[in-house]
Amino acid sequence: MSGSEIDKLINEISKLPSIGRKSAQRIALYLLKDKEKSLLPLVKTMQEANTKIINCNLCGNIDTILPCSICQNPKRDHQKICIIEDVSDLWAFERIGIYRGVYHVLGGTLSAMNGIGVDELSINKLINRIKTQKVTEVILALSTTMEGQTTSHVIVDKLELLEIDITRLAQGIPIGGEVHYLDENTLSTAFESRKKVI
Amino acid sequence: MSGSEIDKLINEISKLPSIGRKSAQRIALYLLKDKEKSLLPLVKTMQEANTKIINCNLCGNIDTILPCSICQNPKRDHQKICIIEDVSDLWAFERIGIYRGVYHVLGGTLSAMNGIGVDELSINKLINRIKTQKVTEVILALSTTMEGQTTSHVIVDKLELLEIDITRLAQGIPIGGEVHYLDENTLSTAFESRKKVI
Repeated sequence: MSGSEIDKLINEISKLPSIGRKSAQRIALYLLKDKEKSLLPLVKTMQEANTKIINCNLCGNIDTILPCSICQNPKRDHQKICIIEDVSDLWAFERIGIYRGVYHVLGGTLSAMNGIGVDELSINKLINRIKTQKVTEVILALSTTMEGQTTSHVIVDKLELLEIDITRLAQGIPIGGEVHYLDENTLSTAFESRKKVI
Repeated sequence: MSGSEIDKLINEISKLPSIGRKSAQRIALYLLKDKEKSLLPLVKTMQEANTKIINCNLCGNIDTILPCSICQNPKRDHQKICIIEDVSDLWAFERIGIYRGVYHVLGGTLSAMNGIGVDELSINKLINRIKTQKVTEVILALSTTMEGQTTSHVIVDKLELLEIDITRLAQGIPIGGEVHYLDENTLSTAFESRKKVI
């Protein structure tokens, strides 16, 4: 693998999430095989993305307009705020299309191990947003990991004196899940939260 | 997923080999989360790759010098040419480091289905190279797929009147392979080509 530029390209590609060294090599070769057709259009698109895609100053979503198209949409219910970790979670909600409120993207979860505290996330911004805007419900849609749950707790602590509903996503067996494959935590949570059928 | 530039970026990324739509979304979000740290360095490296990485005019390898560092190396045996499909095969050989000859990258295999004929590959260039250069051995290291084997046959046909050794890689059970997992073709090939132990 001679040519430091080739190694550099492979290295840079292998930094991308879910791309191993082997995939990075394959992608680099693909890009270099016909540069006009593959490398240059990708570079152009990335340059456009760099200048045109911006973070919404209200909710943290990414878009080409400011505030983002969700925050600007008068048909959305601006009294409901769904708190999510990342933009990918927003996309997941928008795909199913059942939620008509607005969002607040935290940018991750609190994590002592990774040095992510309240100041690294947009938690204070959220609190200010809730205090200055008329909000009736805050929906916590964070991961059910240790970090996600800790983050939820911290947010609940900061909001409990305000007169708003705070809800969180239901926890239990995922749809299509087989009971004997469930981990112990999910199974015990599902059991503890069991609902009366008749 | 509002913002056509975001969709465009995801589309462009999902064209890369072994990247599905979900991975493309993940990569796009990663690139957009901190553009200065991830998107811009990648764009810069790709632009450098575009200008600096070139195809070797002799063997088809990619490098930053012309001819490539293998073709320029006086310590390599220029009388042996190993014929491979792609640069990734060259890298595989160089990783194990047992081969000291030079290469010829075909750029793929003959495929009627994909419209790849002799003119699409560097087969004629290979024949000229062998005729004008002193070559003692040509090693066929193409895939053992239908297309790879057809390509090998075509090359052998074109070379058989020249006074050179033509060899191909051994075929049989891969090392670490379990007999009961082998496909029928491999098992029958390995059986037919069995070697005397004592």
